[in-house]
Amino acid sequence: MTPYAEMTKDEMRRAREELLAEYEKFQNMGLNLDMSRGKPCKEQLDLSMGMMDALYSGADLTCEDGTDCRNYGGLTGIREAKVLIGDMMENNPDNIIIYGNSSLNVMYDTISRAMTHGILGHKPWCKLDRVKFLCPSPGYDRHFKITEYFGIEMIPVDMTPTGPDMDTVEQLVAEDPAIKGIWCVPKYSNPQGYSYSDETVRRFARLKPAAPDFRIFWDNAYCIHHLYDTRQDHIIEILAECKRAGNPDLVYKFASTSKITFPGSGIASLAASLNNLEDIKDQLKNQTIGHDKVNQLRHVRFFKDIHGMVEHMRKHADVIRPKFEAVEEIFDRDLEGLGVGEWTKPNGGYFISFETLPGCAKEVVARAKKAGVTMTGAGATWPYGKDPKDSNIRVAPTYPSLQDLKTAAELFTLCVRIVSLEKLMEE
Amino acid sequence: MTPYAEMTKDEMRRAREELLAEYEKFQNMGLNLDMSRGKPCKEQLDLSMGMMDALYSGADLTCEDGTDCRNYGGLTGIREAKVLIGDMMENNPDNIIIYGNSSLNVMYDTISRAMTHGILGHKPWCKLDRVKFLCPSPGYDRHFKITEYFGIEMIPVDMTPTGPDMDTVEQLVAEDPAIKGIWCVPKYSNPQGYSYSDETVRRFARLKPAAPDFRIFWDNAYCIHHLYDTRQDHIIEILAECKRAGNPDLVYKFASTSKITFPGSGIASLAASLNNLEDIKDQLKNQTIGHDKVNQLRHVRFFKDIHGMVEHMRKHADVIRPKFEAVEEIFDRDLEGLGVGEWTKPNGGYFISFETLPGCAKEVVARAKKAGVTMTGAGATWPYGKDPKDSNIRVAPTYPSLQDLKTAAELFTLCVRIVSLEKLMEE
Repeated sequence: MTPYAEMTKDEMRRAREELLAEYEKFQNMGLNLDMSRGKPCKEQLDLSMGMMDALYSGADLTCEDGTDCRNYGGLTGIREAKVLIGDMMENNPDNIIIYGNSSLNVMYDTISRAMTHGILGHKPWCKLDRVKFLCPSPGYDRHFKITEYFGIEMIPVDMTPTGPDMDTVEQLVAEDPAIKGIWCVPKYSNPQGYSYSDETVRRFARLKPAAPDFRIFWDNAYCIHHLYDTRQDHIIEILAECKRAGNPDLVYKFASTSKITFPGSGIASLAASLNNLEDIKDQLKNQTIGHDKVNQLRHVRFFKDIHGMVEHMRKHADVIRPKFEAVEEIFDRDLEGLGVGEWTKPNGGYFISFETLPGCAKEVVARAKKAGVTMTGAGATWPYGKDPKDSNIRVAPTYPSLQDLKTAAELFTLCVRIVSLEKLMEE
Repeated sequence: MTPYAEMTKDEMRRAREELLAEYEKFQNMGLNLDMSRGKPCKEQLDLSMGMMDALYSGADLTCEDGTDCRNYGGLTGIREAKVLIGDMMENNPDNIIIYGNSSLNVMYDTISRAMTHGILGHKPWCKLDRVKFLCPSPGYDRHFKITEYFGIEMIPVDMTPTGPDMDTVEQLVAEDPAIKGIWCVPKYSNPQGYSYSDETVRRFARLKPAAPDFRIFWDNAYCIHHLYDTRQDHIIEILAECKRAGNPDLVYKFASTSKITFPGSGIASLAASLNNLEDIKDQLKNQTIGHDKVNQLRHVRFFKDIHGMVEHMRKHADVIRPKFEAVEEIFDRDLEGLGVGEWTKPNGGYFISFETLPGCAKEVVARAKKAGVTMTGAGATWPYGKDPKDSNIRVAPTYPSLQDLKTAAELFTLCVRIVSLEKLMEE
């Protein structure tokens, strides 16, 4: 196909009119589709219904160590859950705390604790004039909302297919003691589906931050969320790499089963060095007597072990892989060669990232919305919701049915083409 | 019986020797009993095992409003849980947020939010030079631990059988704008089992705090935790009373099902004015996508309605009432008339409060410990663990078996008698 930029204005005008006629057809369909959030679909949720039978009135809810899961206690979680989640996170169970239902909540609490009490004896962040975070962007909007809520200044850093721009990261953290952290989704990143290269992870583990209380916030949300059985990304385990590099306390690592069992009814976890864990437990013991051990046990009884979990994730992949592939096919078919956008083709995770021509993302999302398809708000993937190029759109293919998704993807490419033409005609 | 204080030194010496001989017998029994925490016993936990069948693989986990409880969303909880917990708390469902598994966690987060972001637009507490809390004492140790953790200065206020000394409360909050809150367990208080009188609640609702961001932290932990079917305490509902008094925003109210279903696997809640709720939601939306809706639904399906919950609490009462009565009987039998202590006889809740002669509590607890019976640490019921008279001991009768409890109570009265005699002999 001819790249739009090489068309004459007249060709552009005609092409646009044809596309608008098509767009009108979509408008008349009365669509109401949602590609905005990384939500599992019903078929995925059905996969975990067996977990509802894992515990029953006749079951013994006692742990291997004799703990009655139904009573108070167990601040850091039950041992068998730490073993299961340890295998999932590739960490020693002793380095893990099992929390409640939400890793976002754990991240929030981690920042909140640093604000009010500081990290490992350092000054509470709320007593400092300025606190800054590096934000590889595009990134996860809910990460950015946490740091924004606490008045932490967010500095965008470019994301590349191998991870954040490490030259910039290394330089900034070495120079500025106000930089206290960096948000990372190292595997199947949100929204690109990129995974950090070995070099990136090694450079992270070897950071020399000016701030002694600088921490990497390593949100390994999609650690076992592969779309393919053999085409799988692998990243170096960060706690072990930090330990090898002589920086054992440099990282907080987060994960959950939200997109493995039920979002909102899974179990969340944090892995860190024993030093960091002691620091955290000193706070945690004031916050709660313990998290939901019955739900921890429910997860363990359902999966049995990490192999059970991996087999379970294959079933998820079977449901959502066709959706990712359908979107990619439609993007290829409708947009390839037009020079109006680029998109990622991840091996796992929950998102595809789309880059429009500069200045088009907001308009594309608005156009899709007018025809009944909700995308993640343009800008949401950047700190403060401000995408400097107005070009990134996060595509979430998992929730709609395959048929709806195809319709939505077709409408989306149509919107991209129309808005791109309009943009090019302005020039 | 002759009050010990009226005995001659010689009589005291002989009485002490007899008691020590008895004490030695207990020491030789190799006891290992725990009366330290308000934990339900196994028979109580068994009462809720049916809840494990309330949801199963064939069940529809959809709410009345169509929400799929298995997926993301529902920041403030599902409607039917708000109705159930609303009936339990005597509040409108619209005034309720359903949280995760722990009301302690909700209280901690409430303080933490006030520290970092302030209340309803007022200055964050972490920006103030001093923040103080009133602490009716003896009180709940975990409340005091939260305020201590945040560096909040705690001011003890006397507890009476009708509630905190309201003259002092009214005067202090009116005078000192640094006083930002007060901890209350208004019904079957921890540790006395006292319930606030109507006058006390009315005076609370009419407080005129110097600080506009002063809040009553009303921990209604034992709202339906009666020991008897008709001998039940009733307190005026505080949100309604505050509204009537023209102070709708004055109170945060907390509750949970921890001692109704499973501690650690129940659901917690907060009730407050709509103003306060909006303020809280502005924070909560950054902390989580939502709490565990599946567990909310599990509770609703199990209890069906408040009547189901009340019937369930009768079964709890049948298990623990004999334990409270056994302790009271042994205290009456062994201590009545000796002038060595006073104890409460609550109609509900989880504790009996024991007042020794001044300066004896620590020694009594240590003596019991030496013979294998663990009590709540003396002092724990006071801010900073400092009981000015060293006289309060919290007795938690629910967890041990009835037989063990009787043994423990007998040992306890023995320790009280020995330590009191020793104290009197010193004088």
